[in-house]
Amino acid sequence: MTAFERLFVPDAFRDAVAERAWLDAMLDAERALANAGSLVGVIPAAAAAAIAEQCDPSLYDADALWEEGRAAGNPVEPLVRGLRERVGGEAASYVHLGATSQDVLDTAAMLVSRSTAALLAGELDGLAAACAGLAREHRSTAISARTLLQQAVPTTFGAKAAGWLGGVLDARALLEALRFPAQLGGAAGTLAALGPPGLEVLAAYAAELELEEPALPWHADRGPVAAIGAALGRAAAVSAKIGADVVLLAQTEIGEVSPREGGRSTAMPHKRNPVHAVLARACARIVRANVAVLSDGEHEHERAAGAWHAEWPALSTALAYAGGSAAAARACLEGLDVHPERMRANLAEDERDVGSAESFVDRALARYESSRE
Amino acid sequence: MTAFERLFVPDAFRDAVAERAWLDAMLDAERALANAGSLVGVIPAAAAAAIAEQCDPSLYDADALWEEGRAAGNPVEPLVRGLRERVGGEAASYVHLGATSQDVLDTAAMLVSRSTAALLAGELDGLAAACAGLAREHRSTAISARTLLQQAVPTTFGAKAAGWLGGVLDARALLEALRFPAQLGGAAGTLAALGPPGLEVLAAYAAELELEEPALPWHADRGPVAAIGAALGRAAAVSAKIGADVVLLAQTEIGEVSPREGGRSTAMPHKRNPVHAVLARACARIVRANVAVLSDGEHEHERAAGAWHAEWPALSTALAYAGGSAAAARACLEGLDVHPERMRANLAEDERDVGSAESFVDRALARYESSRE
Amino acid sequence: MTAFERLFVPDAFRDAVAERAWLDAMLDAERALANAGSLVGVIPAAAAAAIAEQCDPSLYDADALWEEGRAAGNPVEPLVRGLRERVGGEAASYVHLGATSQDVLDTAAMLVSRSTAALLAGELDGLAAACAGLAREHRSTAISARTLLQQAVPTTFGAKAAGWLGGVLDARALLEALRFPAQLGGAAGTLAALGPPGLEVLAAYAAELELEEPALPWHADRGPVAAIGAALGRAAAVSAKIGADVVLLAQTEIGEVSPREGGRSTAMPHKRNPVHAVLARACARIVRANVAVLSDGEHEHERAAGAWHAEWPALSTALAYAGGSAAAARACLEGLDVHPERMRANLAEDERDVGSAESFVDRALARYESSRE
Amino acid sequence: MTAFERLFVPDAFRDAVAERAWLDAMLDAERALANAGSLVGVIPAAAAAAIAEQCDPSLYDADALWEEGRAAGNPVEPLVRGLRERVGGEAASYVHLGATSQDVLDTAAMLVSRSTAALLAGELDGLAAACAGLAREHRSTAISARTLLQQAVPTTFGAKAAGWLGGVLDARALLEALRFPAQLGGAAGTLAALGPPGLEVLAAYAAELELEEPALPWHADRGPVAAIGAALGRAAAVSAKIGADVVLLAQTEIGEVSPREGGRSTAMPHKRNPVHAVLARACARIVRANVAVLSDGEHEHERAAGAWHAEWPALSTALAYAGGSAAAARACLEGLDVHPERMRANLAEDERDVGSAESFVDRALARYESSRE
Repeated sequence: MTAFERLFVPDAFRDAVAERAWLDAMLDAERALANAGSLVGVIPAAAAAAIAEQCDPSLYDADALWEEGRAAGNPVEPLVRGLRERVGGEAASYVHLGATSQDVLDTAAMLVSRSTAALLAGELDGLAAACAGLAREHRSTAISARTLLQQAVPTTFGAKAAGWLGGVLDARALLEALRFPAQLGGAAGTLAALGPPGLEVLAAYAAELELEEPALPWHADRGPVAAIGAALGRAAAVSAKIGADVVLLAQTEIGEVSPREGGRSTAMPHKRNPVHAVLARACARIVRANVAVLSDGEHEHERAAGAWHAEWPALSTALAYAGGSAAAARACLEGLDVHPERMRANLAEDERDVGSAESFVDRALARYESSRE
Repeated sequence: MTAFERLFVPDAFRDAVAERAWLDAMLDAERALANAGSLVGVIPAAAAAAIAEQCDPSLYDADALWEEGRAAGNPVEPLVRGLRERVGGEAASYVHLGATSQDVLDTAAMLVSRSTAALLAGELDGLAAACAGLAREHRSTAISARTLLQQAVPTTFGAKAAGWLGGVLDARALLEALRFPAQLGGAAGTLAALGPPGLEVLAAYAAELELEEPALPWHADRGPVAAIGAALGRAAAVSAKIGADVVLLAQTEIGEVSPREGGRSTAMPHKRNPVHAVLARACARIVRANVAVLSDGEHEHERAAGAWHAEWPALSTALAYAGGSAAAARACLEGLDVHPERMRANLAEDERDVGSAESFVDRALARYESSRE
Repeated sequence: MTAFERLFVPDAFRDAVAERAWLDAMLDAERALANAGSLVGVIPAAAAAAIAEQCDPSLYDADALWEEGRAAGNPVEPLVRGLRERVGGEAASYVHLGATSQDVLDTAAMLVSRSTAALLAGELDGLAAACAGLAREHRSTAISARTLLQQAVPTTFGAKAAGWLGGVLDARALLEALRFPAQLGGAAGTLAALGPPGLEVLAAYAAELELEEPALPWHADRGPVAAIGAALGRAAAVSAKIGADVVLLAQTEIGEVSPREGGRSTAMPHKRNPVHAVLARACARIVRANVAVLSDGEHEHERAAGAWHAEWPALSTALAYAGGSAAAARACLEGLDVHPERMRANLAEDERDVGSAESFVDRALARYESSRE
Repeated sequence: MTAFERLFVPDAFRDAVAERAWLDAMLDAERALANAGSLVGVIPAAAAAAIAEQCDPSLYDADALWEEGRAAGNPVEPLVRGLRERVGGEAASYVHLGATSQDVLDTAAMLVSRSTAALLAGELDGLAAACAGLAREHRSTAISARTLLQQAVPTTFGAKAAGWLGGVLDARALLEALRFPAQLGGAAGTLAALGPPGLEVLAAYAAELELEEPALPWHADRGPVAAIGAALGRAAAVSAKIGADVVLLAQTEIGEVSPREGGRSTAMPHKRNPVHAVLARACARIVRANVAVLSDGEHEHERAAGAWHAEWPALSTALAYAGGSAAAARACLEGLDVHPERMRANLAEDERDVGSAESFVDRALARYESSRE
């Protein structure tokens, strides 16, 4: 719906958080639950197989699930009804056994986040490579450092790029460090409906999904969601920092970089707008706004009455626009023309001393190389 | 894309901010510009007619416009290219005359906001009516007031509803007071490409669209957008306040209200979850996050390099979820069962004095009645 | 405490929201309540006089009140205890008659907001005058308009200043339109402890304080607070917009404006940093963050358990830093050296046409003049 | 200034972020810089000793430094001037050698953050102990789980406390993982003024302060600040979650817990308000708002013109109120009366099965024990 997603968010990221992706993830959770139950022995193998067979997203109408979800307050309730109908017979009674809607939705959120985070990691890798390339090539290219947007003393363009690279590698490491725990607790977080084997089912469920097994259900402890939010925020922030610097360096009067293919203007056909840099900044603002929603841990009792629900669109949007931001920053740098002669001309004649700028470039590149091993 | 919109946002609001709605609005702006130019005499009448004929949204592929818009950084550039091609001949040179992308997009934002605000006003009217109905019916129904969630002294349920009503009427008035100015400034906000008749074209353009004629172009002064944001935030906040109170009153142990048709649970078929109240709260969180984006007035020079772009999805989302919030609060109250006997039972025996509660109900209802005249 | 307030916030604004100012305001509310009770006849005149005599802030230790307030969760409880002790005798039983802590604190918030808003209005007036001066003087001074930070076509520096002026006048009007309602509802918002004369006491109380008489108590309807927040946000946003433009124009390579007395640098004694512009932007960020707190209307039942309390520091901070932002923007413009020759030099030779820029200057100045009448 | 800090923030936290604490930290940075220079051999030992002698906070007027800092845009410039004057003679030329204001202020920010984070860790340890105590004692105490604030099925109060404990331990771990890097880059981040020994000075400077040695200067890469913000946000969020649950459990009609010493009410002397729980929630809102400021990484070039400055008060406030939030949550739990009989009474007769709740308690306690080793 939101009209501008096609403009800001690359297709892969849009797909990764689309209704279909969530449907896939919810069905993965249901299938894993059935399989885990079968492994542990609380669900007959045949019933588990029957359930798994119906956990095929092409059998469901994603749009309809969300529309029906309005009445229940979440899309899991209609999905489980549909799944039970399809499975039929006695096996139907094993569908969703021991789980509650939040188990499936929180687990799906982790699956969607994991796959989108992997895409984002790819974009950050590309962005890091672009930064590293610039740092290497322009290790010694003198440019004025600017503080409070006033010329200070010289640095090198490579050192600027090395600074960007450092931020990107940090953001990449944050993403890498994310845990994606499965969620399974049943109606109250006690796994009561599964009886004593509940803990085994939890372990098997997490293993089926290759998600982390949590020590405790986290239905009301939103640490995992907040951590994802913080990592997305960081990825967007470093992308926006690059965007901001490029926009500033590309100013007509400064002209030290320019987009190889600038954005067209309806009023001024001669212009070459630094569109990618601009979009990186814009996307980061959307990410920041949505991350704020994800950092509210004040979830009431065993399931929040609103704070939980708000996470779903906020997480989807933050994931998508973090991708938009990183992809735009990467495209910005990959398509950047650098003008060393202009950098030199903008510097006062007698300014030559770039201090340890080159050493810092070397350090950043060394870290980059070791991060790729 | 964002998977959960079907769940949170009523169809009418989703349509009102969809790509198609923005396309309609952008074409309305282009048509109005051509007509205005014709009226003022800077565009031949035949050219204006030829342009207006092509300003038919069914001729364009909305999805494609946004995808192509990535390269330009906005959807107006490909739209204008397409429009010029369709118009062809000499008339094509009059397409978009004197305008820049931001003129069309900001004007479209006002058109989209105006129409969505009208829908929202309708929801708030319904919500106010529901509040008024409860206030009237329960003018004297004693209930414990609760401060810091502790029982205080009695009030009436009507007085609670009157308090909600006051907030809703204030939010409604904020919405009513919104100005929706047209935007036309050309490449730099000087209308230079139109020459001296520029000011007349601006007036005619605003008149064509029935938008307010601004004294100055506001491309870099985001007051109109911030005001819309504040009004949406208020509408969502009063909806969330109602949602929060209903969730609290509907607690099992309190049971003073209950949803006539509660949400179903996958794990506990007997539950009647106050789904509408919950959704009102959830939507309000999404609105608040996006309103924060709309309140950032720090737009650089004559067109911001990122802050402007971020407004588009933030505005669309805030409009849609404000609708979701108000509609949910309304549905919540329209489908509310009230249990006066339970309210009485929860009060200590000797607590009877409701002070001026009934007078406050009368005041709120009087204001409500006068607001409808 | 917060170490940096002396740096960001002018003394007058710091005083206006300091503990002493809140203490004054709370005592004003208590005195008004006693006087109102006396006028209506629910408090003996002698008791009211005795109470009023003790409503002298110099008799109380402001720091201690806040420290003691930790136990009660607000500073009114220890204040009322202290006031009762001081008044003594039978008159003591009339202290705070019919009121609850929130009545006094919400009313105090309105008094503090009103007086700080008046200071802020003064700063905005000064800022508007500075904008108007620049608009007038540079009505025809050509400068490049810049979109996405790329040179577009010419405008005039006066038109830029006129755009700022428009924003400032809008922010000023928002401030002017604020309502500051008194709050009096007693323990539950019913005025029960005052009996039938409660409504008269409310009217007299508001009149004593020259605050608006609300139709209903607003203890749980935070519209008035949200409106103040929105107005402060707008004042800060227009100040930050000016700051951003000045920072950009003052860039070494652009040099179209410069601060008459720039900030000193510890590392580069030659620099003239645009400190005021920078501070205007910084303050606005603090305002925006705090305004977000003020816009959360989800206050539970008759008194929120946390959301209300968070308003106190957020409101104080937003008021103070809005003052900091506007004062900095004003100082920035009042001490600005403008370099028309540099503006001209930065423009391409053949660019002369400033379109209707001068007409827009005239419009803005006309609005400014009429706003001062 | 901000009137309410004494109410919300414990003394230790107020001191830890006060002007005096920042002054101490800035002087620590200057002393470390002199010592490092002496160690590396770029500053004569006698000069370094003379400088170190004057790095005594009692020699400076903290208030005056911040007031004077308005002109420079930061407090370091007047401090360095004062320090140079005090040192006098040739040694004065070695004061602040190779550094810029941001080096000192960013380093001071890390010192202030480290010491406040240590205080916060102490509060979280106390909070974890309180959670663990409740989890242990009420391992098997049945209580209704509540989802969407509706009774679901039983859990144990120990399992609720175990859930809180898990969140607190995660927040504690985030805090523990924080890196506090020294910042030294000189005017442009190149250490140029120190010549080739600059890198050695950086290492010695970090070692003197027992801060992490950064690979690169981070003046424009705000990862360290964002990470602190995220950790503070998490600490506040888990505190607020506890506060919210306690407020809800303490509701009059539920009464499953109550504060041993409740807050007094001015209107209703019989009330026992859950003040600590309320303050934990309120503080968390202030933290969240300020953390949003800290997560904006879009710092221009080598020193941001506003975004950097806004960090100072936002960081101070976030640190202080995170302390306020954790301390309040701790006091809330340490002074909590638990009413198992009421928990039982609120449950339906036939509800006994608490599933794996006790196992989850055991898991959480095991983690707690191992975290203390």
